[in-house]
Amino acid sequence: MKKNITSTHDTSPQSSVSSSKRNEMQKNEIKSSNIKWHSASITREKREEQNGHRACVLWFTGLSGSGKSTLAHAVEEKLHQHGCHTYVLDGDNVRHGLCSDLGFSINDRRENIRRIAEAAKLLTDAGIIAMTAFISPFRDDRERARNIFPPGDFIEIHCTAPLEVCESRDVKGLYQRARAGQVKEFTGISSPYEAPLNPELTVNTGNLPLETCVDQVLMMLRERKLIACESERK
Amino acid sequence: MKKNITSTHDTSPQSSVSSSKRNEMQKNEIKSSNIKWHSASITREKREEQNGHRACVLWFTGLSGSGKSTLAHAVEEKLHQHGCHTYVLDGDNVRHGLCSDLGFSINDRRENIRRIAEAAKLLTDAGIIAMTAFISPFRDDRERARNIFPPGDFIEIHCTAPLEVCESRDVKGLYQRARAGQVKEFTGISSPYEAPLNPELTVNTGNLPLETCVDQVLMMLRERKLIACESERK
Repeated sequence: MKKNITSTHDTSPQSSVSSSKRNEMQKNEIKSSNIKWHSASITREKREEQNGHRACVLWFTGLSGSGKSTLAHAVEEKLHQHGCHTYVLDGDNVRHGLCSDLGFSINDRRENIRRIAEAAKLLTDAGIIAMTAFISPFRDDRERARNIFPPGDFIEIHCTAPLEVCESRDVKGLYQRARAGQVKEFTGISSPYEAPLNPELTVNTGNLPLETCVDQVLMMLRERKLIACESERK
Repeated sequence: MKKNITSTHDTSPQSSVSSSKRNEMQKNEIKSSNIKWHSASITREKREEQNGHRACVLWFTGLSGSGKSTLAHAVEEKLHQHGCHTYVLDGDNVRHGLCSDLGFSINDRRENIRRIAEAAKLLTDAGIIAMTAFISPFRDDRERARNIFPPGDFIEIHCTAPLEVCESRDVKGLYQRARAGQVKEFTGISSPYEAPLNPELTVNTGNLPLETCVDQVLMMLRERKLIACESERK
């Protein structure tokens, strides 16, 4: 629910106006106090130019245990070796911080995904290849996330390790607890996972070696010209 | 209010465990499906090394019209010219996005500042010099923000343009409306501004030219060895 913010003051003075209008106001502001104003305009494009690659969000989705976080961090490592600027949002850095006030009701889970998407958007605006590693089981939530990005920025990557494989891994014993009825609404057991209908990439994280999965993600990034091809790199 | 997250599953499977424990689990996970695991460990330190400067947050605070946002964007431009990686959080990119669900009650304003601090923390973790340009009038809120950062990361910059100067600028006519009683709890008029008692930097944005203010911020960053000195740059 958006609030009307034009009547407020607890943000930057330019919070609700267009960029051109803001520049005009800044000029006036500076003029009125005889401060020499110079245009401050570091855009996402300039940051991408500085970084040598495009920014985007890689939205990893899949069952618990499907390897989202492992794959995201492995992709990050490879991209870092290529000189790319990256960041992985996952439970480690989000649930204790930005979303520490949220529980696990339907509304809170939706808000959790919304904030993750907004944080990823800030990161892409900062020129970074942002990666998110959350189950994000519902199509609606993922579509809402996609829709806050400009076309082409949101890249949905479905980690398709099947339930049997994820359950056999069960690194935290969560599936066992879910089967015992100790964890409510556990995705894949007592709550649905709505697989992406048209993801930008599907990675078989159930069978393929991690290295192969990483290569598939990087190939996709090259095909979309988000990062440079091997031959173009110095 | 922190919720117990160990009983959940709607985050990455490793959300509530230590890094070493997580690595161990990842190894087990990968072993169980015969995927060759390699350590994925791009840290903030590695990103800072890649960027050639330290990450931190510059927390600009001051009255409406004191020049926080103008100064932050001017600092950003200069840092960008120096090859630094930066991002400014302000009303433009926060109030319509990450905080679009928040209004202007006391609780919502506090939550607004909390989320801004958490977003800045993610940015610094990503190796970026994050800047925030919000009035943030209350010491408590700013202290809470400071406390989520490791020592030395949070740099409070007080923009000290006095009320008369800010009110004479009044670029959005907000002071006029506040004086007319049309804007409730307007900082400096009908709501207090609690000046920092011990900010890392005080900048006289009421009298000094913008260029001088920018230089003061950069000098402070060099003194703290967060960015390289002129002589050290290539």
